[in-house]
Amino acid sequence: VRNHFAQPRLDARSWRLHIEGPGGQTVDLSYDDLLTLPAHTVAATLECAGNSRVFLVPTAAGAQWELGGVSTATWTGVPLSAVLEHAGIHATTGEVVLEGADNGPIRAESPPIAGSIHFARSLPMAKALQPEVLLAYRMNGAPLPAAHGFPLRAVVPGWYGVASVKWLTRLIVTDRPFQGYFQTLDYSYWERRDGLPSLRPITELQVKAEIARPAMLEVVPAGTLYRVHGAAWTGESVVSKVEISPDAGLSWAPARLLGAPLRNAWRLWEYAWPTPARAGRYTLMARATDAQGHVQPLQRDRDRRSYMINHVLPGPAHMTGCCWRNHHLGRHC
Amino acid sequence: VRNHFAQPRLDARSWRLHIEGPGGQTVDLSYDDLLTLPAHTVAATLECAGNSRVFLVPTAAGAQWELGGVSTATWTGVPLSAVLEHAGIHATTGEVVLEGADNGPIRAESPPIAGSIHFARSLPMAKALQPEVLLAYRMNGAPLPAAHGFPLRAVVPGWYGVASVKWLTRLIVTDRPFQGYFQTLDYSYWERRDGLPSLRPITELQVKAEIARPAMLEVVPAGTLYRVHGAAWTGESVVSKVEISPDAGLSWAPARLLGAPLRNAWRLWEYAWPTPARAGRYTLMARATDAQGHVQPLQRDRDRRSYMINHVLPGPAHMTGCCWRNHHLGRHC
Repeated sequence: VRNHFAQPRLDARSWRLHIEGPGGQTVDLSYDDLLTLPAHTVAATLECAGNSRVFLVPTAAGAQWELGGVSTATWTGVPLSAVLEHAGIHATTGEVVLEGADNGPIRAESPPIAGSIHFARSLPMAKALQPEVLLAYRMNGAPLPAAHGFPLRAVVPGWYGVASVKWLTRLIVTDRPFQGYFQTLDYSYWERRDGLPSLRPITELQVKAEIARPAMLEVVPAGTLYRVHGAAWTGESVVSKVEISPDAGLSWAPARLLGAPLRNAWRLWEYAWPTPARAGRYTLMARATDAQGHVQPLQRDRDRRSYMINHVLPGPAHMTGCCWRNHHLGRHC
Repeated sequence: VRNHFAQPRLDARSWRLHIEGPGGQTVDLSYDDLLTLPAHTVAATLECAGNSRVFLVPTAAGAQWELGGVSTATWTGVPLSAVLEHAGIHATTGEVVLEGADNGPIRAESPPIAGSIHFARSLPMAKALQPEVLLAYRMNGAPLPAAHGFPLRAVVPGWYGVASVKWLTRLIVTDRPFQGYFQTLDYSYWERRDGLPSLRPITELQVKAEIARPAMLEVVPAGTLYRVHGAAWTGESVVSKVEISPDAGLSWAPARLLGAPLRNAWRLWEYAWPTPARAGRYTLMARATDAQGHVQPLQRDRDRRSYMINHVLPGPAHMTGCCWRNHHLGRHC
């Protein structure tokens, strides 16, 4: 769970979703109104855009995530497209601003931004109208927990978690690009165009595999077959391949993908590792590829600021370190 | 003069202006090519967007300008619209990115932006095609000095100086909004929309009067007629009125506007001040209004970050201070 402001306490009976259309028309929906609309359930992996930040060299400001800023759940709610249609909004261009009830001051800026601001993000209409983009009120078959956005949150599959605004209280449909704090000064990256960096909001998940076992510092028997396993996910595609290197990137062998591919949800994988006969310290690496041909890069791209961290770990800058979680193992770490 | 990187040394003989059209076509123009195109001369006041920053409370990072970050010159060159037409570019939408030869690292960000970036800004096509927007090679009737952008600079009348890119080497015409460093993380402000702040590039000059005399700490005779004078300017309009308050804002009297109004250039003004018979400390204030009805505000708007500083000085926050340049005077400052 990652919030930018204190978790708001909302009462479903008095709560309303306030919708503002491009012509200025407004519609308010109650919690019960939403329950009367046809419900859909989707599985989605949500990863924080700053997940794995602790591995950046040099250190970057922000939550120092290791590998845990990602999870998968099933979400039940009403497609955003159906809510807009119910509100009489038929726009196919422009964007939708999603605003949460959570708010507070921003202290990172100099001079500071005046007053409190609400957490808010926008979705271009092409993304907003995808049928799997939900306004969700249930998670894993139970009512949405308060920490996950009760009574209503967005779930934007295929995009970094920052897009899935919690504690939703307002939707604004507009033709004018929204440039809120959490998609400009924060949660943005540099896209190089004609050699010039241009600031873009963080959007689509980048293909990534994480090793769950062996864990950091784990000591495994020499000369045996060890089950390495983990998860891999990507953006608007499916993972097609995971490869494992037992020798810090010199050679790669395919892992076995488990279960069936499920769009927008991570895929579990395993790899039977014949551990070396000789005791010592060894570096395991994992690398995923998706069906669109995206492959995890070996090098960090600094234009991503402190976000979208999917380069294969440990990268060259980490090789002199020891015991990075899940990536080194040995008796003497 | 305000640069963000070291002043480049360019040789007019080898220098080229590289123009990239929306379809990928490119044209290179030499200095001599530009001299063959019809020349125009305009007067323009250029003010740094951070001028008067030293008066902000609390203190904001950036160059601590007092009142001197503004000046007026005549500029001679080719209208940007004529250069685009000469290059076979007839776009009426999208924008033009102006890139200078000056470049360097950006150290203010964490993590730092990779490598060196060039100074660059974009103009929406509607502004770019205004006939007074020039690519200038002369200033005040002489060749453009190196410090002012030799051999070629943009002059964007009515906008803050940051738009008038110096040492021009590249124009890029594009349909995709440019979001460069100097119009997003820097040189931007918060526009409130539906109560939510949205980041916008700094563009149009805000109406403003400055008092040139009396200067800071100036002691003037009691019981006489003192000639208060200064300049006033605005964005895409003309100054219609300047008012003076000899009593810290309690009362206001009109100043006399001098000469004829000249669009995009400041207007000088004067005010015959009957100085008080009694010696003491007095606060003079000046306030301009333009023909579109814009009036200098009495309060600072914090959504402007550390830019667009045109509130009437000294504001309430400064009243306990003493000796702000040009605004207080007295025997004992």
